[in-house]
Amino acid sequence: MATTEMPKTCKVIMADKIAQPLLGEVLSMLAKAKSARPAEWKPTLAAFLANDDPAAVQYAEWSKKTCEDHGFGFDLRRVDKEALEEAIVSANGDGAVDGIIVYYPIWTNNPQQDRYIQETVSLAKDVEGLCHTHLFNMYHNIRFLDPPANRKKSILPCTPLAIVKALEHVQIYNPVLAYGNRLYGKTITVINRSEVNGRPLAALLANDGATVYSVDITGVQLFTRGPSIRQPRHQVLDKSDMGLEQVLPLSDVVISGVPSEKFKVNTDLIRDGAVCINFSSHRNFDGPAVKEKASIYVPSVGKVTIAVLLRNLVRLINNRETSSE
Amino acid sequence: MATTEMPKTCKVIMADKIAQPLLGEVLSMLAKAKSARPAEWKPTLAAFLANDDPAAVQYAEWSKKTCEDHGFGFDLRRVDKEALEEAIVSANGDGAVDGIIVYYPIWTNNPQQDRYIQETVSLAKDVEGLCHTHLFNMYHNIRFLDPPANRKKSILPCTPLAIVKALEHVQIYNPVLAYGNRLYGKTITVINRSEVNGRPLAALLANDGATVYSVDITGVQLFTRGPSIRQPRHQVLDKSDMGLEQVLPLSDVVISGVPSEKFKVNTDLIRDGAVCINFSSHRNFDGPAVKEKASIYVPSVGKVTIAVLLRNLVRLINNRETSSE
Repeated sequence: MATTEMPKTCKVIMADKIAQPLLGEVLSMLAKAKSARPAEWKPTLAAFLANDDPAAVQYAEWSKKTCEDHGFGFDLRRVDKEALEEAIVSANGDGAVDGIIVYYPIWTNNPQQDRYIQETVSLAKDVEGLCHTHLFNMYHNIRFLDPPANRKKSILPCTPLAIVKALEHVQIYNPVLAYGNRLYGKTITVINRSEVNGRPLAALLANDGATVYSVDITGVQLFTRGPSIRQPRHQVLDKSDMGLEQVLPLSDVVISGVPSEKFKVNTDLIRDGAVCINFSSHRNFDGPAVKEKASIYVPSVGKVTIAVLLRNLVRLINNRETSSE
Repeated sequence: MATTEMPKTCKVIMADKIAQPLLGEVLSMLAKAKSARPAEWKPTLAAFLANDDPAAVQYAEWSKKTCEDHGFGFDLRRVDKEALEEAIVSANGDGAVDGIIVYYPIWTNNPQQDRYIQETVSLAKDVEGLCHTHLFNMYHNIRFLDPPANRKKSILPCTPLAIVKALEHVQIYNPVLAYGNRLYGKTITVINRSEVNGRPLAALLANDGATVYSVDITGVQLFTRGPSIRQPRHQVLDKSDMGLEQVLPLSDVVISGVPSEKFKVNTDLIRDGAVCINFSSHRNFDGPAVKEKASIYVPSVGKVTIAVLLRNLVRLINNRETSSE
């Protein structure tokens, strides 16, 4: 008699489950920070909304709720594009603001101008990890701002780090391996190579040992630490001969963040038993079909991103304290 | 400044580390079994050695030591091939014998005769899981001897189960997935398709959701539960067009058990970051080379096999008790 009850082959993991332990960590870090301060003190995030993107508005609303539920202040400031730079400079100098978040994209036709705004945010308040020093450290696999003391953690961008946390949660990071190499042996496709999300994500995953195919409309790039991951950080190669048709069937993990309602990852190309993660505000996977093919499916990571945002904020506060010691 | 100290990329895992928690489990099962019995009682394994294989002699010596260190009796009986059948029949009827182990191969030129001996061992004392009922259950992915009560566990062959335990230890089994599907998405090559080791191993791994290439000198067979692992147990397909050249580069895990000093797995064919496990008494991998390529290397599993043997023995005793209730 063969087993008749078949367990479901795909495990669907929701973002709140992944966020939970991170929020626990945030609460205990916050309690520690509060213990040395006046009772009325609470860390405050200033959030600048200068576009009309409904996804940004929703993300801002979720962030506000999560902040307030966890003892943080959240100050949403709607500003005109043209007034944004001055507003950020003023927040940089405001002792009541602990961290600054800006909703991108703003100048959709001029990415350089968004880049300029990212650099306007003070490094000490850059909760999104988008200032050049934070980005440089991430790309170079440097984890602290103050070597060799190594007491001030460099901040990582929220969405890429949220996806790393999701991959840790579903045990794609193998804790048996040395820290820093825990994705060794894994092949991962990341669809989206924006400067804010997809490119930093591909770099983080490759720095941790994975073979990463980074895909956007311009083509495929391969991010790896080289044969036997001998390099200390990732290198990038153009793979002009490859497309999703070639890289998806090779991939243990498929991560998609295409900001379009129309885009769907072709389920037929996904390998049996793959892990699929969506970080777009649109559904990049065909849910019912992907559940017949994937071993693990994470339909969204927004709530994890917010948890990481708060974790980054407490880290910024800890870094400031370390400076004043 | 980039990180200068690089962690070793390959983690070498020794068998005693994998065996430790199993032996802990054995001790607590044994304590429970002892509590209901006279103080002088100890479970006893009768071990029949009817060949001159030095690997069998060494395995017998290790088994004796491990048995005695953990409160078990180990009675090694050297017998002539021709007297083996009668000796087993006598042990089957002997109340002082709780489990029977026979060192194979015996009739190297007549495997059917070894098969006959395996079937001579009483099901209730078949600590190696090689009786037809145990093998049938394993191949059909049936875990109990007494459905639907499901209180008597079917016994699995020691070496294949030891390798499963090794794969659990190094977290290739993903505990996030449903029990019974935890290898879904993994591609595994098993080099050796003996009836005692390689074939049952390929079946166990495929039953747990893996895509398994089973390789021996006659060629390659593919063991899987079909597309999206929809079948309740594995099926086997001949892959006459494939060889190690084709299957090794596809494999997340390479398991080799070729009983020959000369055989070495070609390291060049192994994929960067693969998990490599040797279960031959000879070194099937080129150690220094494989450590430059693998993420995890388990050079032997003998001690895990002995731990599984003891675990099987306590299970047989528990099964007997369940019958007499």
